[in-house]
Amino acid sequence: MKALIERIRAEGVNLGGGILKVDSIINHQLDPALMADMGAAIAARFNGTPVDRILTAEISGIAPALMTGIEMNVPVVYARKRKPITMSGPVFLETAPSHTKGGETLLLVSAEFLHAGENVLIIDDFLATGQTLQALARIVLSAKANLVGVGVVVEKTFEGGRAAMQAHYDVPIHALATISAMEGDTITVRDD
Amino acid sequence: MKALIERIRAEGVNLGGGILKVDSIINHQLDPALMADMGAAIAARFNGTPVDRILTAEISGIAPALMTGIEMNVPVVYARKRKPITMSGPVFLETAPSHTKGGETLLLVSAEFLHAGENVLIIDDFLATGQTLQALARIVLSAKANLVGVGVVVEKTFEGGRAAMQAHYDVPIHALATISAMEGDTITVRDD
Repeated sequence: MKALIERIRAEGVNLGGGILKVDSIINHQLDPALMADMGAAIAARFNGTPVDRILTAEISGIAPALMTGIEMNVPVVYARKRKPITMSGPVFLETAPSHTKGGETLLLVSAEFLHAGENVLIIDDFLATGQTLQALARIVLSAKANLVGVGVVVEKTFEGGRAAMQAHYDVPIHALATISAMEGDTITVRDD
Repeated sequence: MKALIERIRAEGVNLGGGILKVDSIINHQLDPALMADMGAAIAARFNGTPVDRILTAEISGIAPALMTGIEMNVPVVYARKRKPITMSGPVFLETAPSHTKGGETLLLVSAEFLHAGENVLIIDDFLATGQTLQALARIVLSAKANLVGVGVVVEKTFEGGRAAMQAHYDVPIHALATISAMEGDTITVRDD
């Protein structure tokens, strides 16, 4: 997605250790027009795929998932990382090692909002090691729902997440911007 | 906002202790069409107010803030509750006692994304005690920006947040749905 790639080139900062700072467009500040275009672009890549529900993980997955949900007109569920006081009844629970925070991240989805037989599209901001996406995929399988695809805003190919996902799940994976290398101030980014 | 009020009446659950469960439309699952209408409705209530930026707090503020930002075509910043690895440089930091989680909640906004002289509209999912909204307002003042208003999806009038805000900030406060009482299975909700 050209506009996104240009923004990453202009505003992305390589913090070292494989960490890309894109706080100005995804992780802290949101550009609503760009975010709406991202949702439309993700929806376009899954054009023809039956989708009943979008699943993402809080926090930074919410915006791209919501914008994709608006394009597809399907409900969006965001997995919680801590049990809110309003979460009651059975939950699907998975854990993922956190890439950027260390430790384990909990992912909780209420059984109220994920049903057997539904076609579920997973959306997130980043595909890096793929651990969060795999945990979301396990939640989809636990619910006996069908995983139909994975859409992300940014993929970092050098962390191997796509191959790890594909080893377990035979579904299309689309990224709007693909980063193949980050060295010093140079971020090598291309279209999917 | 009629459609929202009807959904709260149909799906809201009084969990006791002043806690309203609206997980099916705001706090866990999002209805994209309803959320888009909420953004349009909040924007309409601030029609004529100059707004340069929207400020909200993760997690459940992100969706209504983003949809309002799309209507107003202004950037949206969500205060972080934990410092992400990508947050560097000076930050505005405030704390608020957490109503639903207990303890203190940290709110962090990078100085990169909030500038002196800007007109800032604060958006959040709930106005209850108003502690989070007051912490966001203090961040706006710390940045020497102008607080121009507060928009929320749901106000619970019986927790006094509006009066607490108005004691400190002379700005319009709008809610899309106003809950004046929750007793047993009865949630008394009306338009602003």
